[in-house]
Amino acid sequence: MFETILENVKAKAPFVHSITNYVTVNDCANMILACGASPIMADDIREVEEITSLCNSLVINLGTLNERTVEAMVAAGKKANELGHPVILDPVGAGASQLRTKTALRLLQEVEVDVIRGNASEIKCISKGTASTKGVDADQADKVTEDNLEAAVKAAKQLAGRTKAIIVITGVIDIVADATKAYVLRNGTPVMSRITGTGCMLSAVIGSICAANPDNLLEAAAAGVAMMGICGEQAYEKMTARQEGTASFRVHLIDAMGCMDGERLNQAVRLEVM
Amino acid sequence: MFETILENVKAKAPFVHSITNYVTVNDCANMILACGASPIMADDIREVEEITSLCNSLVINLGTLNERTVEAMVAAGKKANELGHPVILDPVGAGASQLRTKTALRLLQEVEVDVIRGNASEIKCISKGTASTKGVDADQADKVTEDNLEAAVKAAKQLAGRTKAIIVITGVIDIVADATKAYVLRNGTPVMSRITGTGCMLSAVIGSICAANPDNLLEAAAAGVAMMGICGEQAYEKMTARQEGTASFRVHLIDAMGCMDGERLNQAVRLEVM
Amino acid sequence: MFETILENVKAKAPFVHSITNYVTVNDCANMILACGASPIMADDIREVEEITSLCNSLVINLGTLNERTVEAMVAAGKKANELGHPVILDPVGAGASQLRTKTALRLLQEVEVDVIRGNASEIKCISKGTASTKGVDADQADKVTEDNLEAAVKAAKQLAGRTKAIIVITGVIDIVADATKAYVLRNGTPVMSRITGTGCMLSAVIGSICAANPDNLLEAAAAGVAMMGICGEQAYEKMTARQEGTASFRVHLIDAMGCMDGERLNQAVRLEVM
Repeated sequence: MFETILENVKAKAPFVHSITNYVTVNDCANMILACGASPIMADDIREVEEITSLCNSLVINLGTLNERTVEAMVAAGKKANELGHPVILDPVGAGASQLRTKTALRLLQEVEVDVIRGNASEIKCISKGTASTKGVDADQADKVTEDNLEAAVKAAKQLAGRTKAIIVITGVIDIVADATKAYVLRNGTPVMSRITGTGCMLSAVIGSICAANPDNLLEAAAAGVAMMGICGEQAYEKMTARQEGTASFRVHLIDAMGCMDGERLNQAVRLEVM
Repeated sequence: MFETILENVKAKAPFVHSITNYVTVNDCANMILACGASPIMADDIREVEEITSLCNSLVINLGTLNERTVEAMVAAGKKANELGHPVILDPVGAGASQLRTKTALRLLQEVEVDVIRGNASEIKCISKGTASTKGVDADQADKVTEDNLEAAVKAAKQLAGRTKAIIVITGVIDIVADATKAYVLRNGTPVMSRITGTGCMLSAVIGSICAANPDNLLEAAAAGVAMMGICGEQAYEKMTARQEGTASFRVHLIDAMGCMDGERLNQAVRLEVM
Repeated sequence: MFETILENVKAKAPFVHSITNYVTVNDCANMILACGASPIMADDIREVEEITSLCNSLVINLGTLNERTVEAMVAAGKKANELGHPVILDPVGAGASQLRTKTALRLLQEVEVDVIRGNASEIKCISKGTASTKGVDADQADKVTEDNLEAAVKAAKQLAGRTKAIIVITGVIDIVADATKAYVLRNGTPVMSRITGTGCMLSAVIGSICAANPDNLLEAAAAGVAMMGICGEQAYEKMTARQEGTASFRVHLIDAMGCMDGERLNQAVRLEVM
């Protein structure tokens, strides 16, 4: 199944409009290209509707948001809805400030979001509508573990039901859920949290895959999560074999995405349906 | 000839003021350094005139433009004109939105631009004064091929005559033209379009070379195009020999620019005068 | 001593709030992670006070400053003071424009800055309150050399006394001084100035180390300078052994920071107290 989903990206080479932060934007653009799509970054309110109209999906990322870009996010989101383009929301740091929490909640109210991807704390914040995270990393207490997995999956499904969005929670264990079905994925490596932007990159990849698979968003999102996790494993292997550090890991991670194919994906994915 | 042009950059170590997008800005800065110049990025209208006055050329890049930076581009451009500094315009995404098309045309009206570098669709948009591109990549229909090369060169010369700017159209075949003379260059690799920012980087390199060769802008621009293409070939060779992906290609590309010398340049350039 | 300082960063894993430029921000974030801390980049005035409250130190970097972010810098700085968090100022390009000079001086007036890190020209500009630099690199005439070292150390101590901040001047020879004591460090490689952002990265590293060693800021800043210099040496060795260029150097530099440990640091540091 994931095989076809990946082939669709390469065959359709969709355009992905991203309104994203200036910290990880270059890695996001290169990841979108590596998985077979084309990135367009544009955040001025006078052009975002036109730009989104040229594209096949929209990724909204709240890292380094500001007054000017928040309005552009809302406008682009509404236009994407009008056109039926998948909209992915990455609520970076939701819970860390009122501005981020309110913006995430406002976007969910004014825009029909198709996929929400965050760490456990960000998703919890969106679910509760209140702040509790520490910075942009997930709180230890919120993390999904084997012990709380069942409850986490249930909560993800409920939130998916309420928001009509697919919920993607990433961490050591990843959950991709709609209201009735959840994929639990166990690929990846802890080194992914030792470079900046793996979450943002994943949201960009999900945006790319959803753009080419608009009728199959749950599996598209799960495929994206699987692909990033597997790329992380491959990059970790290369890094340790060569006794390198995290900057090399980052290079290997993007390299791996460009070399990903359906066979490798199907072989390496560690997936469970719940 | 290109040998002397490159030597001038290393000898003069000029300063290049860039007002550019936040997607590829780091690669642009590192490319400017790799070819022997020094970058200064500054986009606040209260300082761009002073900053441009300290520099030897100005590169204006329309990627992720916004209301604030557009005014800074105009102000910096006028100051650079006053001082006789070469001005390079990279109309990223011209044609993809009214904002980008209008800004490109406004800049050409209010600022004397010395070099315009874009893909075939962006240049066509500037030539026609209307929008027709799909995103920030060139439309298939607009691309320069062996079949339409003669017509493309003629159109480039005409546009150069009308705008008084050197026209640089990049793609599989590159054209560098003023009103009466055109260089056609055939270096490069398709992988260059699989990472973000090779166009932006080229504009930054052209800005560096023009800064050190202000009396010889046509050859300076052609040298820049040749150098980027050759770096692409070297990076591609390394990437494939090592079975790496696009993020490694990007590292090799910038590495190659830092190792470029006149001899390598003269040997590897594939150039025709039309 | 440096050993304990470095161990504290890894043990406490502090959060570092950076308001910084979009040119080198990704490298800064990855350097903060590489040395054991966590980065948060946020620059909207509506959230900077909350974000800084979640963190353990604040790094203010003037590269690509604008009207909007300058106000956020002041607000965040005041909040950090209120909370007793170390504040690091990197006056990128102070002296290159009135805006940068005035902003640096305004910050020093309205915020209690704990560490100021710049090149010789930037520090001179702050000391004199006037502009004289050429771009964002240090003027040849301002550089610290063996010949003027004694005078430079004296000037640094005086400025430290006046500003109540630790003064870090980086170049071929580095000086880290408070009003009464100065460390002179001689690690590093000239290649560090052939990539963009080594200064910014160092400020980010100093912010990380100070966050975990708030009672020992002079030694924390000196440890940061030593670590960056040693990483530069290791990266240079790797780059030359493999006949690579500056983009590889950048990867090796961040890799080296992630692999730095107390033993390596103590062995490689070239330090003198004056």
